Amino acid sequence: MKTLWHHCHVATMAQGKYSIIEDAAMVTVGSLIEWVGPRSQAPTVDYAQVHDLQGAWVTPGLIDCHTHTVFGGNRSGEFEQRLQGVSYAEIAAKGGGIASTVRATRAATEDELFASAEKRLRSLLRDGVTTVEIKSGYGLDLANERKMLRVARRLGEALPVSVRATCLAAHALPPEYKDRADAYIEHICTEMLPALAAEGLVDAVDAFCEYLAFSPEQVERVFKVAQQLGLPVKLHAEQLSSLHGSSLAARYHALSADHLEFMTEDDAIAMAAAGTVAVLLPGAFYFLRETQLPPMEALRKHGVKIAIASDLNPGTSPALSVRLMLNMACTLFRMTPEEALAGATQHAATALGMGDTHGSLEVGKVADFVAWQIDRPADLAYWLGGELDKRVVRHGVDVTV
Amino acid sequence: MKTLWHHCHVATMAQGKYSIIEDAAMVTVGSLIEWVGPRSQAPTVDYAQVHDLQGAWVTPGLIDCHTHTVFGGNRSGEFEQRLQGVSYAEIAAKGGGIASTVRATRAATEDELFASAEKRLRSLLRDGVTTVEIKSGYGLDLANERKMLRVARRLGEALPVSVRATCLAAHALPPEYKDRADAYIEHICTEMLPALAAEGLVDAVDAFCEYLAFSPEQVERVFKVAQQLGLPVKLHAEQLSSLHGSSLAARYHALSADHLEFMTEDDAIAMAAAGTVAVLLPGAFYFLRETQLPPMEALRKHGVKIAIASDLNPGTSPALSVRLMLNMACTLFRMTPEEALAGATQHAATALGMGDTHGSLEVGKVADFVAWQIDRPADLAYWLGGELDKRVVRHGVDVTV
Ligand SMILES: [Zn+2]
Ligand SMILES: [Zn+2]
Repeated sequence: MKTLWHHCHVATMAQGKYSIIEDAAMVTVGSLIEWVGPRSQAPTVDYAQVHDLQGAWVTPGLIDCHTHTVFGGNRSGEFEQRLQGVSYAEIAAKGGGIASTVRATRAATEDELFASAEKRLRSLLRDGVTTVEIKSGYGLDLANERKMLRVARRLGEALPVSVRATCLAAHALPPEYKDRADAYIEHICTEMLPALAAEGLVDAVDAFCEYLAFSPEQVERVFKVAQQLGLPVKLHAEQLSSLHGSSLAARYHALSADHLEFMTEDDAIAMAAAGTVAVLLPGAFYFLRETQLPPMEALRKHGVKIAIASDLNPGTSPALSVRLMLNMACTLFRMTPEEALAGATQHAATALGMGDTHGSLEVGKVADFVAWQIDRPADLAYWLGGELDKRVVRHGVDVTV
Repeated sequence: MKTLWHHCHVATMAQGKYSIIEDAAMVTVGSLIEWVGPRSQAPTVDYAQVHDLQGAWVTPGLIDCHTHTVFGGNRSGEFEQRLQGVSYAEIAAKGGGIASTVRATRAATEDELFASAEKRLRSLLRDGVTTVEIKSGYGLDLANERKMLRVARRLGEALPVSVRATCLAAHALPPEYKDRADAYIEHICTEMLPALAAEGLVDAVDAFCEYLAFSPEQVERVFKVAQQLGLPVKLHAEQLSSLHGSSLAARYHALSADHLEFMTEDDAIAMAAAGTVAVLLPGAFYFLRETQLPPMEALRKHGVKIAIASDLNPGTSPALSVRLMLNMACTLFRMTPEEALAGATQHAATALGMGDTHGSLEVGKVADFVAWQIDRPADLAYWLGGELDKRVVRHGVDVTV
């Protein structure tokens, strides 16, 4: 039951490079890639199916490795108030900011959360995404974090996308624990994480390390429990200040440290040694009008793998497209289109612990790919928004979203 | 043959304000709006059709009043080279920049130009656009400017969108006229404009007033001929320097002056007096990483109408979504979501000379509207890229793109 895909060029993204094969063909068997190379050398066997890709450029399916897709309500009202001149302090005093998303998420039923998240996820999928990470972190108690993670699991069953669920209980301090951050961390470590992990709802554990969230010491307690539970860790680090959370993440062999605008060269050295991926989030940088750029030269110099993600969330990055993030990575962070595309394919897969099976078009890997009607791979980072003609294939099968 | 549209909220955008009617209904007859108001007051007659809009927010169809949608090739290769460290000077020396787009546009057949522009236009339409302006300006000789304008006309016939065609022969100096800008302007005035106008291909006349394009004196010669031909004028002005092109535009009662980062308060006063719309192009500002913001306070203070457009073009704004431009107008220019939406509806219509018939949902106007599945109108400027669930109606009829 071999399938031949031909009349295309392929950017395999092997090792995070374009690794282009012009006039290429690909052979899939079931959900896996059996062969990829120049069309003239394709095995001459009896194919069960032959697909003419009409001159398309084929890339791996896009991987969005950092999202908060599941949440109640949205914050467009606050966005509007801010632009009308209302201060953050006033909005926060009225219960706005992340507190309003926590309230809305807690108030929503699982079905309501599923319905609103499904719309957003479909938007990502229509733009070529085949794998997505989804974090909890707006429930902030056992029942509501469970509800969020269950929605993430259901999304992966209902839609043609592979979902990785990350427990981000240590995202913010819930109102019940006001001024008692250590007690909340204790609750996460002794109650929430063990229970959610036992229910099979957690693929990785994340935390927000920042002066307005949790300290490195508090994060480390969470990481230790994750380690005991056999779960890989990730970290929101160095977004607004330098607490060396990324070095802490590296010590725990984190899959990734994310944001990183304020990281130092020493952090980069530690991450490179640990194989921890740097996940950059240009949508949040843009939306918050930040000015501190992530240290691209230090990351490149020390060979840290760089991923790019949407950070889709209601407060700081209401981003519904990964391609737009590629453009922002190039325009704002001066990444090359090749680096940006690697950041949403091979390196994004590595940031999810899936680098051996996903993220590039190589023999033995999963046949998740997009055939884009474009002139060259750089088009994926060049066009601003909108929609490109494409055909999306996941697990070797055409996908309609 | 009356049609009732109900179960919705309407942001009519009358006078460029939300002008919200909650729990509203709208009555259309043929392609026109016959009634709009609170559902409870809707005329009780026998409707030929009744459409339940399922709680949607209805806005006027989006109007993209400044695009260069028709062009040959694209410049993603240059985009990539720039990010790999190649200088503008090197790219220009190798025939890059606008010269490469002129070559590719001249080399393309009318059908080829149509096919590539159609894809881009469909992307705009899928995002809720019902009216679009399309400029020539990459032909730069009679035959090729004609070819571009004919493609613009054909697009309006083939797709469910109203197209306004603008002759921008004075966009750049063609290679045949190197160092002879006055002679090219003379050619535009005596040959190109009269011929293209006589063929009915021109709805408005535009020029690029900038130190690296044409001087105010040269622009004025073009405007005088446009005036003689009975055609309204527009102007690319004050993008990179202050030549007071916007004041010149106001003297000729231009429909709009566009870009305007370097305009002065005196320019704003002149534009307000003339009713010339300020068309801001945040996609180009973003893509070029400009730092000089348009003078929002002067524009507001003097009551200049502000429109927002994609500037869709291969060199400085490869933007395929008007909603993304609304976000950039808010995020980068600090416009409110209401101002931004007015800029892509009522004021954009005025910038095309269609303000009396398009751009707001009022009795007697054309029934071009979008029913968005969103929580509030601010959502249109809040979400970053991607796709929102919607239903698009043009001339009173559902549109599928
Ligand atoms: Zn995040
Ligand atoms: Zn333009």
